[in-house]
Amino acid sequence: MDLDLSPYSVHTDLALEAKELASSRHGDTIPGVHTETAEDDDMVITKMHIENEQGSRAVGKLIGNYITLEVPRLREKDSDLQDKVATRLAQEFSTFLQRIGITKEAKVLIIGLGNYNVTPDALGPLVVENVMVTRHFFELMPDQVSPGYRQVSAVAPGVLGTTGIETSEIVQGIVERSKPDLVIAIDALASRALERVNTTIQIADTGIHPGSGVGNKRKGLTREFLGVPVIAIGVPTVVYASTIVNSTMDMMIDHFKQQTSNTSQIFGLLDGMNESERLQLVKEVLDPVGHNLLVTPKDIDQFIEDMANIIASGLNAALHDAIDQDNVAAYTH
Amino acid sequence: MDLDLSPYSVHTDLALEAKELASSRHGDTIPGVHTETAEDDDMVITKMHIENEQGSRAVGKLIGNYITLEVPRLREKDSDLQDKVATRLAQEFSTFLQRIGITKEAKVLIIGLGNYNVTPDALGPLVVENVMVTRHFFELMPDQVSPGYRQVSAVAPGVLGTTGIETSEIVQGIVERSKPDLVIAIDALASRALERVNTTIQIADTGIHPGSGVGNKRKGLTREFLGVPVIAIGVPTVVYASTIVNSTMDMMIDHFKQQTSNTSQIFGLLDGMNESERLQLVKEVLDPVGHNLLVTPKDIDQFIEDMANIIASGLNAALHDAIDQDNVAAYTH
Amino acid sequence: MDLDLSPYSVHTDLALEAKELASSRHGDTIPGVHTETAEDDDMVITKMHIENEQGSRAVGKLIGNYITLEVPRLREKDSDLQDKVATRLAQEFSTFLQRIGITKEAKVLIIGLGNYNVTPDALGPLVVENVMVTRHFFELMPDQVSPGYRQVSAVAPGVLGTTGIETSEIVQGIVERSKPDLVIAIDALASRALERVNTTIQIADTGIHPGSGVGNKRKGLTREFLGVPVIAIGVPTVVYASTIVNSTMDMMIDHFKQQTSNTSQIFGLLDGMNESERLQLVKEVLDPVGHNLLVTPKDIDQFIEDMANIIASGLNAALHDAIDQDNVAAYTH
Amino acid sequence: MDLDLSPYSVHTDLALEAKELASSRHGDTIPGVHTETAEDDDMVITKMHIENEQGSRAVGKLIGNYITLEVPRLREKDSDLQDKVATRLAQEFSTFLQRIGITKEAKVLIIGLGNYNVTPDALGPLVVENVMVTRHFFELMPDQVSPGYRQVSAVAPGVLGTTGIETSEIVQGIVERSKPDLVIAIDALASRALERVNTTIQIADTGIHPGSGVGNKRKGLTREFLGVPVIAIGVPTVVYASTIVNSTMDMMIDHFKQQTSNTSQIFGLLDGMNESERLQLVKEVLDPVGHNLLVTPKDIDQFIEDMANIIASGLNAALHDAIDQDNVAAYTH
Repeated sequence: MDLDLSPYSVHTDLALEAKELASSRHGDTIPGVHTETAEDDDMVITKMHIENEQGSRAVGKLIGNYITLEVPRLREKDSDLQDKVATRLAQEFSTFLQRIGITKEAKVLIIGLGNYNVTPDALGPLVVENVMVTRHFFELMPDQVSPGYRQVSAVAPGVLGTTGIETSEIVQGIVERSKPDLVIAIDALASRALERVNTTIQIADTGIHPGSGVGNKRKGLTREFLGVPVIAIGVPTVVYASTIVNSTMDMMIDHFKQQTSNTSQIFGLLDGMNESERLQLVKEVLDPVGHNLLVTPKDIDQFIEDMANIIASGLNAALHDAIDQDNVAAYTH
Repeated sequence: MDLDLSPYSVHTDLALEAKELASSRHGDTIPGVHTETAEDDDMVITKMHIENEQGSRAVGKLIGNYITLEVPRLREKDSDLQDKVATRLAQEFSTFLQRIGITKEAKVLIIGLGNYNVTPDALGPLVVENVMVTRHFFELMPDQVSPGYRQVSAVAPGVLGTTGIETSEIVQGIVERSKPDLVIAIDALASRALERVNTTIQIADTGIHPGSGVGNKRKGLTREFLGVPVIAIGVPTVVYASTIVNSTMDMMIDHFKQQTSNTSQIFGLLDGMNESERLQLVKEVLDPVGHNLLVTPKDIDQFIEDMANIIASGLNAALHDAIDQDNVAAYTH
Repeated sequence: MDLDLSPYSVHTDLALEAKELASSRHGDTIPGVHTETAEDDDMVITKMHIENEQGSRAVGKLIGNYITLEVPRLREKDSDLQDKVATRLAQEFSTFLQRIGITKEAKVLIIGLGNYNVTPDALGPLVVENVMVTRHFFELMPDQVSPGYRQVSAVAPGVLGTTGIETSEIVQGIVERSKPDLVIAIDALASRALERVNTTIQIADTGIHPGSGVGNKRKGLTREFLGVPVIAIGVPTVVYASTIVNSTMDMMIDHFKQQTSNTSQIFGLLDGMNESERLQLVKEVLDPVGHNLLVTPKDIDQFIEDMANIIASGLNAALHDAIDQDNVAAYTH
Repeated sequence: MDLDLSPYSVHTDLALEAKELASSRHGDTIPGVHTETAEDDDMVITKMHIENEQGSRAVGKLIGNYITLEVPRLREKDSDLQDKVATRLAQEFSTFLQRIGITKEAKVLIIGLGNYNVTPDALGPLVVENVMVTRHFFELMPDQVSPGYRQVSAVAPGVLGTTGIETSEIVQGIVERSKPDLVIAIDALASRALERVNTTIQIADTGIHPGSGVGNKRKGLTREFLGVPVIAIGVPTVVYASTIVNSTMDMMIDHFKQQTSNTSQIFGLLDGMNESERLQLVKEVLDPVGHNLLVTPKDIDQFIEDMANIIASGLNAALHDAIDQDNVAAYTH
C-alpha cells in the first residue's frame, strides 16, 4: 500500500468505486464494462468484467475480472457472519479459479504483502500466518499426503522500506526456486469511503501493478514479470484524507439540496464541479503541505485480525477439496 | 478518549488549539487568558494560564495551568531528539509540580488511561509499563530505599467497555487503598490537526473531566472526586474526520484567496462563515451517518511506543531527585 | 505466579498433582480427601473435596472444592475440541456455582491476574480482554438489558513489580467501589509436569493465598480479605526446573527397573528416597545458584491465547442464562 | 532452531560449550583447536579457530572461526551495558569481516531466521525489523547516497512450517535476484545452560548447516549452496530439558563430593559416567515420551527485544563507516 499522487488518480484501489466514479461522469452503462450483482441480507457481491481498452480507460482499472464482496456489518464481531463470509469467499474464489482455468492440481504460492508492524498494512502477513501450507509435506513425504490437498506455500516478503529490495524481485526469486503454477497476492488497499474499510473484499485476476495505488512495487506482481498468473485479494484498510474531505463536501451539497434549490449560492463553484475536478482541487491543496495522509479508523487493530482469519479460512476451503466449503472455520485457528 | 458530540465543541483536547480557535473569533488577546511562549530549533513550549471564568468560557477549557510542548520533527525517529524532549519534559514537569505546591516527598500514583489493544489509545498503558515504580520497596523494605527517590505506583485500569466499571470509580478505589498525595493521569487526546498527532505533549493541572473530550469517565478524574490533586499528561493521537474536512476547507479558501479577491464566488456562503459555524455544518452532515469517526495516521504504531518512552523517561527524572535530569534515557528501557 | 521456595513445597499449584504426590507417600486413600473422576475420549474431569484439616495437611492444599479438567490433546489446535472444552467448562462451572450457593443474580467481578507482557503470565489479562462485560449496561441503561444476563465486570490489575501496589489491595479497592457478590480470579499456575502445561484447567473455591505458589499477593485474594467469595480458575503455563529434573530421575529409575532388580546399584541412595526427599535435594542444589527458574515450552505463545478464549467462552456461558451452553463459541471473538 | 535428536549430539549450538564438553573428555588442549580469551568486568570474549578435521571431530563443530561474547549481567536491563555490548560487537564484527577478507564495499544481505510469533524464535525477524537497510537508496537514487555507507538489505523469510518452502531455497532465490556479496544470518540457538540464555552472542563464519541444531534447513545456508560467504550470528534463547537435567546431576554430584569421598554410594553408576554417557541416558528416557522439549525462561519476552536491538546496533556500526562505532545506539530505534 502506498501513496499514489498521480494527477488523475481516482484515489481508490477498488474497481467497484472506480466504476461508481466513472458512472457519475459517463452514466450507468459504460461500454466495455460488464457488471452483475447478487445480494442477500448480509452482503452484496458484484462481478465486474472490464472487457477492453475502452472500458479500462473509462474506469481507470486494468482489463480483467473483479469480484467484490461488500458486507456492511462485518465490523460487528459477529462470528456467525464471519463464518458465512469465509464460506461465501471460498465458493466465489473456487469458481473464479475455474473460470480463469486454474486446475485443482495447480501449485499455489500465497504472498502476504505489507508490513507486519503497521496495523492497517498487516493484513497480508497475517493471512500468511494463518493459512494452511502443505508444500513441504509433498516435498518431504509425498506418499503420506491425503487426497484432496494441493501444494500451497506462503511467504510474507516484507516491504521495500524494511528489506531494501523491491518486493517483486523477492517474489520473483521465490517463484523461480519453488515453481508454483499460480501466485495469490494479499494486500491492504485504500478506499474512498471509511465505511468500506474492513467490510469489503476484492478479488482480481489482474495482478498488482506499480502505480495502481498498491505500493512500492515498481516492477509489479504480474504474469508478465513472474511468468505465472497472479490473483490479487485486497481489503481496504485506509482512506486518503482527500477522499474524506471530498465525500463530505458531496454530502453537504446533497444535504442542502433538500433545503434549497440554489446550492450554488452556498457552495459557489464547488457545487458545479464534478467529483474528479473537486477531488483534484482538494489534492492540490493537501499534497504540498503533506496532509494527504492515509487515515484509518482508530479501532482498526480489532478488525484486521478477524479479516485475515476470514481470508485464510476462505482460501483453505477454496484451495483444498478435502476441506469442506460449508464449514470453513474448523480448519483455521 | 471518546467521541464528544456536544453542539459547540471545538473538537480538540488541546488548550492550545482551543485558544487558537478562540483567537480567530475574539482576537489575539483574550481577557482572563495569559500565555507565554519559548522556542528553540526543535520545539515550541507554550505556558497558558486560564485565570478566571471569563477566560474559561472564551476558550472552552477549564480554569488552570497548561503547558504544551510542540516538537514538529518528533515523528522522525531521531533518538537524540527524543532524549532532548524527555529531558525538557522532565524539567518543565518538575517546575510545574513546584509551582502548584507538590513537594519532593509527595507520593504519586500514575494512571494510564486507555485501551492497550487499540493502538492510538494505548499511550497510557504503555507509559505505565515503562515507568519506574518504587512504592513496594518503601512498603516492603523501607530501610533499603536509597535517598533521592519518592513513592511512585502506576496502574492501567482499562476502559469502561472492557471493564464494565467507570474508570474514575476504579481509580477512586485504588486511591483509597494506596493513599497517594498526587495522581498523574496519562491519556491519548484528539487534536484538530493531523500534524500535531504524536508531536505534541500537554500538561494540565485541571484533572480530566467528563465531556472534555476524554472519554467514558462520567465522574471525572478530579481533585473533587479523588480528594487529591490530579495532573493530566496528554498526547494527541487521533483527529476527528470533521476537523480534517474543515481545516482542508480553510486551506482551500486560503489557497484561492491568493488567486482571486472573490473567493465567495468559488466557495459561496462557506467563505463567509467563521470556523465554528462551518465546523458545526460539517458535523451536522457527518454525525447522522456515523462518519465523524476518529482517524489516525496509518503508521501510528511506530510512534506511540516512542512517545510512551519519552513520557516515562521524563516522569522518572522529574519525580526522583536521584535520577539525573540531564541523562534521562538511561533509566528507562 | 511467583517462585515459591518454601522448604516443604510440593512445587505445584494443582491440587490434583499435590494429591498424587501425597498418595505416593500415604497410599491412594487419604483421610479427609474425597475425589471422583469422570472421563471420555478427550478429557478427564476430577472433582476433589478436601474436607478437613487432616486432608489439608496431607495434601498441602486448603480445605475446599477443586475441579480439574485434563485435556491432553488441547495443544493440537483442534477448534472443535476447544469448543467442546469451553462447553464442558461452562457446565462444570455453572454446577460449581450452584453447589457453593451463588445465585443467578449474583454480581461477578472477574480479576485477570498476571503480566500482559510476559507470555506465560498473560492468561489472566487475556481472559479479561475476551470476556463479555455487562455491568455498565445495568448502571447506564438498566431498562434496556435483556433478561438472562447478570452484572459482570472485569479488571486486569497488573502485578506488584509494575504497579508498586499489592494486587490484593487494588482488588480490595475495586470491590469496595463496585460491590460485586463474587470474585473470579484467573491466574497462570506452575505445574510439576510439562505435559500439563496448557492442557489443564483447575477451578477452586479456596481463593488465592500468599505462598500457595501464586505470587506476590501477601494479603491474598480471599473471602476473609475481600468480604465476598473468591473462585480461582488456573491453568499451568510453567514448570519449575527442579520438577523437570526430578521427574526425569523418576523416569530413569522406572526405566532401569524394567531391566534390573538392583537399581540402587545404578542410582545409589537416590533410588531409595521418596519423591519429596529427592525434590528437596534437587532444590538444595539449584536454588543457591539461581537455577530453579520457571521454564515454559518454547511455543507457548500459540497456546495461551487459545486457552484464554476457552476460559472466556466458558465463563460467558456459565454466567449468563441467555448464552447457550451448547454453543459457547459464537459469543466470544 | 529445531530439535536435534542425533545420537551423539552435544545438544548445544555454541562452539564454546561444545569445546568445554570436549575438554572434559580430552583435556584442555585439543589438537586442531586454538582459543584465546579476553575479558573485562562485564564480558568475556573468546575467539576459537577450529583449524582442521581433527579439531572439528573432537569438538563436533565445523572448521572455521568462532567469536563468543559472554555478558552475564546482560539480562539486568542496564542500558549502559547494552550500549557497551553493541559497541564491542560492532568492533569485533568489523575485525572479523576484515580477517575473512570482506571489503568495505561488499554488499550485504541480512537474513533473520526464525518465527516472529514464537518469542524465543523471534530474534532473527526482530533484528531485520531494527537494522538499517540502504540497498534501495543505492538502486533508486545512487547519487544521493552519502559516502561511508554500503548496500545492506534484510529479509525475514519465515520458517518451513509456516511457508512450506525450505528457508535455504527462499534465501537462494533472493540471493540470485539481489546479488549480495555476503549473507549474514541471524538465528536463535539452543544452549546447554539456562544462564547463557540471552547473555551470549556467537559469531561464526561456517554458515548454518542442517543438523547443526539450527533447524529445518536441510540444504543449509552455506557458501556452497548460496555462492557467497555466510556469517552466522546466534544467541541462545532456549535449552533442552535433557541438558537441564544433566547439568543438575552434575551439580548434585559436585555438591556431595564436598561432603563425602564416596559419591558412588549416593549416585551409583551415574557418578562414574562421563557427561556424554549420562546425557545419552537422560535422552533415552526423555525422547520416547516426548519430554525433551526445548524450554525457555518465563520472562524471555523482555530480553529478546533488547538483544535484537544490540545486534542491530552492532551491525549498523560494523557495516557502515559513517556510523560511529563509539556511539552505536543513536542509529537504532
